Amino acid sequence: MNASHTPDIGLTQSTVISVDAMGGDLGPAAVVAGAARSARKNPDIAFILHGPETELAPLVAKYPELQGKCTVHNAVGVVQMSDKPSQVMRSGKDTSMWSAIDAVRDKSAAVCVSCGNTGALMALSMVRLRKLPGVNRPAIAVMWPSRNPQGYNVMLDVGADIRADGEDLANYALMGVAYAREGLGLVRPRVGLLNVGTEENKGRAELKDAQERMEKMQRDAGFDYVGFVEGGDIGGTRCDVIVTDGFTGNIALKTGEGTAKLIGDFTRDAFTHSLWSKLGALCARGSLMRLRKRMDPRRSNGGVFIGLNGTVVKSHGSADELAVSSAIKLAFRLAQSGFTDHLAARVASAAALAQDDPQPQQNQE
Amino acid sequence: MNASHTPDIGLTQSTVISVDAMGGDLGPAAVVAGAARSARKNPDIAFILHGPETELAPLVAKYPELQGKCTVHNAVGVVQMSDKPSQVMRSGKDTSMWSAIDAVRDKSAAVCVSCGNTGALMALSMVRLRKLPGVNRPAIAVMWPSRNPQGYNVMLDVGADIRADGEDLANYALMGVAYAREGLGLVRPRVGLLNVGTEENKGRAELKDAQERMEKMQRDAGFDYVGFVEGGDIGGTRCDVIVTDGFTGNIALKTGEGTAKLIGDFTRDAFTHSLWSKLGALCARGSLMRLRKRMDPRRSNGGVFIGLNGTVVKSHGSADELAVSSAIKLAFRLAQSGFTDHLAARVASAAALAQDDPQPQQNQE
Repeated sequence: MNASHTPDIGLTQSTVISVDAMGGDLGPAAVVAGAARSARKNPDIAFILHGPETELAPLVAKYPELQGKCTVHNAVGVVQMSDKPSQVMRSGKDTSMWSAIDAVRDKSAAVCVSCGNTGALMALSMVRLRKLPGVNRPAIAVMWPSRNPQGYNVMLDVGADIRADGEDLANYALMGVAYAREGLGLVRPRVGLLNVGTEENKGRAELKDAQERMEKMQRDAGFDYVGFVEGGDIGGTRCDVIVTDGFTGNIALKTGEGTAKLIGDFTRDAFTHSLWSKLGALCARGSLMRLRKRMDPRRSNGGVFIGLNGTVVKSHGSADELAVSSAIKLAFRLAQSGFTDHLAARVASAAALAQDDPQPQQNQE
Repeated sequence: MNASHTPDIGLTQSTVISVDAMGGDLGPAAVVAGAARSARKNPDIAFILHGPETELAPLVAKYPELQGKCTVHNAVGVVQMSDKPSQVMRSGKDTSMWSAIDAVRDKSAAVCVSCGNTGALMALSMVRLRKLPGVNRPAIAVMWPSRNPQGYNVMLDVGADIRADGEDLANYALMGVAYAREGLGLVRPRVGLLNVGTEENKGRAELKDAQERMEKMQRDAGFDYVGFVEGGDIGGTRCDVIVTDGFTGNIALKTGEGTAKLIGDFTRDAFTHSLWSKLGALCARGSLMRLRKRMDPRRSNGGVFIGLNGTVVKSHGSADELAVSSAIKLAFRLAQSGFTDHLAARVASAAALAQDDPQPQQNQE
């Protein structure tokens, strides 16, 4: 097999994705299977897999489709789900997570994918890749199934940081807009700010501040600010990008996923309830499969860390082969579109605009 | 017809529900239709309907089932969705909402139901009914479809107040437990505190404070505290009562509802996609109807204001006949169970316990 410590010649013609093979709930077998699935579907991806070589080499050897496309980078340490980010930052140099991020840092890979501990992954990414100039807090963005023609909306932050002030939220708008452009092909995304619906609650200071900033920046930054939106609009048609702090976004994300799972279970119950319902399920099999595919959270797996010098995709900890493969597909698409460079340019020009014009003539607009 | 300014003799033998007929998106016709539906299903409910008599009397006259069960209380003012709570508190004495709450205050009705402006309804309820001794912030509690045997979990606060400190959250636990007892028949409800999953985020000060308080109070207050839970647990089996602040709870509620609606639409699309899928829907019709019923948000319509000297049920603004009738059913159940009195006793005894033992020996437990 071709596993070795340095990428072989074959890798240079492909887009290289750096994959942290450890730290997922299902272990490295699921991650390697996901990489193999991606390799079967897309011949233009190559991989650097990070983890203990003694564990990974036999797993990689099982898949002929990974031959010549996959390099194993030996890293014996594993970041556990219970590890504190500060610990990992101090003493995690030997871990597969550190090594996977460093492959993006030293440009041997375009994008990094990991199923590991979110807090540690964000902390390490910030230390090793550094924040983009003009970004105070990076964010995690996800794709959310929606009624919009593009099929998905973007929501951020879903958990990079539990706090965000008005400036952070305005920056999330810029970053989300960049992601919606590359990820969804939207020319002028519409941005909403997540809030509760009642009047008196609109007074939360950071939301008011963010609202003013976004109203001012929208024209030059190439998006339309639609105002406050509610939880029900996340999958709706009022906007394409939903901006919120990481605490609220994380609760919303997991509530949405939980609700979808619950309804999925109830639907399965319904179609196994009687002979007639089983027959119905058989008749509608094709449509049910399509529906399942459309709502399958494994297919939209992958939170993107935005605001760093390099792109990191966080996969669900519980990701299986299909989910890992979806995260890799997303990483590949972002690498191909030059997402990191485009985002850097956008944030830099917004920062420059803000400096040129610290007090835009709000009332005259 | 029996519409008059004072309840007639017939009402005294029934449980009287005070209904604000105005302020819903669909107007008084939907509210009166909802009351009529409830009257058909349950002969033990009587109504006082509040609103402009000239509008309501003709609507009531349409339903024979409301004859002898329904009194119209003339109130010409209507609280609009855009009215500020402070405005309504100052100058809303002539409104149907004020009048509907006052019927609970003066004991002519057991529980109040309104589809109107949430902020105004909460503000008026606080002023007219006053908070229970020991309660700093009242909360709005909802039933959430769940995998638990009782079919629903309780979540609060979903929007009474966007802020909550540790003591408020601990009080929400007591109030949610009382509601789960009366509403779901649980003897010893399990309580979870909504948070994001990652370690470093567990540091939010008010959540830590609330956690300590709930750990201490659980034994004497008759519940089990299960710790932090995530968005995916709201409809899950880890706990029966989910405690959170009103900002987060409102976002979670609307996100869950929005997701359910989105999936419902996608499912409908799937079953009209082809001839085979239509045939499937026909075969599985009974099961699909049951599923629809199980997930229908109109059937779990009704947020309960908890922590006041009197119970107010807030219906969705967009409630139709069925949804209004569900809110009335909930109000009736809470009235029958003596919910307000039980809750008052529970909060009072917890407050007494806290006073007796301001520093429980945490480490020795």
